[in-house]
Amino acid sequence: MRKASIATVLVLVSSNAIAHDDLMKTAKQIFKPIPYAIPTLNDNPMTTEKVELGKMLFFDPRLSASGIISCNTCHNLGTGGVDAGPTSVGHGWQRGARRAPTVYNSVFNVAQFWDGRAPDLKAQAKGPVQASAEMNATADHVTSTLNSMEDYVGKFKRAFPRDTPPVTFDNFAKALEAFEATLTTPAAPFDQYLNGDGNALDDQQKAGLQLFMDKGCASCHNGINIGGQDFVPFGVMERPNIKLRPAADQGRFAVTKASSDQYVFRVAPLRNVALRAPYFHSGQVWTLQEAVGIMSEVQLGAKLSERENNDIVAFLYSLSGRLPKIEYPILPTRTKETPPPSLDR
Amino acid sequence: MRKASIATVLVLVSSNAIAHDDLMKTAKQIFKPIPYAIPTLNDNPMTTEKVELGKMLFFDPRLSASGIISCNTCHNLGTGGVDAGPTSVGHGWQRGARRAPTVYNSVFNVAQFWDGRAPDLKAQAKGPVQASAEMNATADHVTSTLNSMEDYVGKFKRAFPRDTPPVTFDNFAKALEAFEATLTTPAAPFDQYLNGDGNALDDQQKAGLQLFMDKGCASCHNGINIGGQDFVPFGVMERPNIKLRPAADQGRFAVTKASSDQYVFRVAPLRNVALRAPYFHSGQVWTLQEAVGIMSEVQLGAKLSERENNDIVAFLYSLSGRLPKIEYPILPTRTKETPPPSLDR
Repeated sequence: MRKASIATVLVLVSSNAIAHDDLMKTAKQIFKPIPYAIPTLNDNPMTTEKVELGKMLFFDPRLSASGIISCNTCHNLGTGGVDAGPTSVGHGWQRGARRAPTVYNSVFNVAQFWDGRAPDLKAQAKGPVQASAEMNATADHVTSTLNSMEDYVGKFKRAFPRDTPPVTFDNFAKALEAFEATLTTPAAPFDQYLNGDGNALDDQQKAGLQLFMDKGCASCHNGINIGGQDFVPFGVMERPNIKLRPAADQGRFAVTKASSDQYVFRVAPLRNVALRAPYFHSGQVWTLQEAVGIMSEVQLGAKLSERENNDIVAFLYSLSGRLPKIEYPILPTRTKETPPPSLDR
Repeated sequence: MRKASIATVLVLVSSNAIAHDDLMKTAKQIFKPIPYAIPTLNDNPMTTEKVELGKMLFFDPRLSASGIISCNTCHNLGTGGVDAGPTSVGHGWQRGARRAPTVYNSVFNVAQFWDGRAPDLKAQAKGPVQASAEMNATADHVTSTLNSMEDYVGKFKRAFPRDTPPVTFDNFAKALEAFEATLTTPAAPFDQYLNGDGNALDDQQKAGLQLFMDKGCASCHNGINIGGQDFVPFGVMERPNIKLRPAADQGRFAVTKASSDQYVFRVAPLRNVALRAPYFHSGQVWTLQEAVGIMSEVQLGAKLSERENNDIVAFLYSLSGRLPKIEYPILPTRTKETPPPSLDR
């Protein structure tokens, strides 16, 4: 009797080990760990000078018309690369239509913005700074502000040594892209798991990973960013509640004008998702439990049990990686040539 | 002839050296260098845990009602501890009545705010967070927000190990005070000069220092902070332009109700003043040249020559010290108990 029990246990352990080997093997085919090395950029070589300059620009509120809104206001590096939500507040206390997407790991996305209208981060960087409901500046305000401070001009020269003049709106965007590309968060438990450490996830997280693949979540949420690669309608199986999917925002349709793109959005990247409530482009859902339940219903037509939901949420917590250490930049001092702030709408 | 010239030069050099010794000696009686050591606080012992907690609170916008305004929004550590001005923008895009005072070296001031209505930094810390035109929160919003995040509660426990409960509005203010007390900027050229390095100021700066004392500026702007110690009417000799001294803001009169306190303000501390345009409580003057000219006229009844003005400005540039390196804090993650942001006015 005792022997038989031991034998049974051994068989179970063994098959469990095989199952776990299979799980890891399958996961490795679908997902990729975040590399430890900073990614390189097409047509925008990264140098220390450019990255440091980009960091200053990222934190400089004087690039907004009002002088109080910086990139970091909505993409706050202290709170998962997003703001408090639901959607962002900008110039004139205007409420934007969509939740701020995170800047962390955004370099791994196929395109930028919820509707993917910018092909890369340097194209993205030109958007919010000029949007009237966000930073409400102009390209001219940006370059005039930067050119008014010698220290900035010197830093542009060193970051873009071949360009005359060095301070341009394009180079502003390139420096921001270079900094943002360094904002990757490797070494999450799930990365350690994908790199072969079977103990990096606990049993509930492994069950959640299995469900995440079995239920179909991983058919969209995959790759390095566990999303961020494809464009998919929000509401494949069921129409989401109008609060979550307001009729006024038809997603990618505004970019392509193709009726097939109505309510189509870039698949949300799920890296560090546990840090980033509220969820969805409308920012109306405040817990991961609720977000997972909604996604399984409207995208997959599946009703998860409470346990399945909790397991998937436990897995999503394993996507929280190591955030880079950022020294808060001391910015160049304004001069009498620096355009004064304007609060006008 | 040649010998005589050399002798003359020697006499001049020698009397120059004596004059410079006198200048340094006089300056040491009037001003004090910023100590390299972080100051200690009455009834609020500074610990690493408390300072680190205070830094998180300083940068956390979720302590405001809207979720987008932190202490750092108006006291931006990247821009001299102030915002872009002229006066601060707060909740609901409201424009405050006064320029944000710098948080750098504020620990050395005799009292806080332009009118000195807070005796210390922990009293000050409770003001803007509750002001409807600034962060528009309540003490309850602050403690509810902090209590909703375990990570914050743990940090309060370690910062205030004897207090039950650890998270209180008082302790929030004490942690902020502890962090802010670390924001000192030693080693400015003028500090090096006061510490005995005669070469730390150039000749123009020495001439400016001499004028700063001879003309009477130093009778108010003295001590460690080159100001920040006394309460003096703005407009001793002449009434300032109404744009600079709007009738609606009678300064310390609002605190004491004494008619002798009409238009009385705390003497502006001049440390790092070159980093902090625009100037005055109304924030209407964008260059140091203009500010120095106005002050000499309305406070001292003196009309400076252009050269005198430039020399004093050169001296003021020697007050820019070494800003502390700040690692941008990663903040605790919100939970479903965290109060959601509210933009309502």
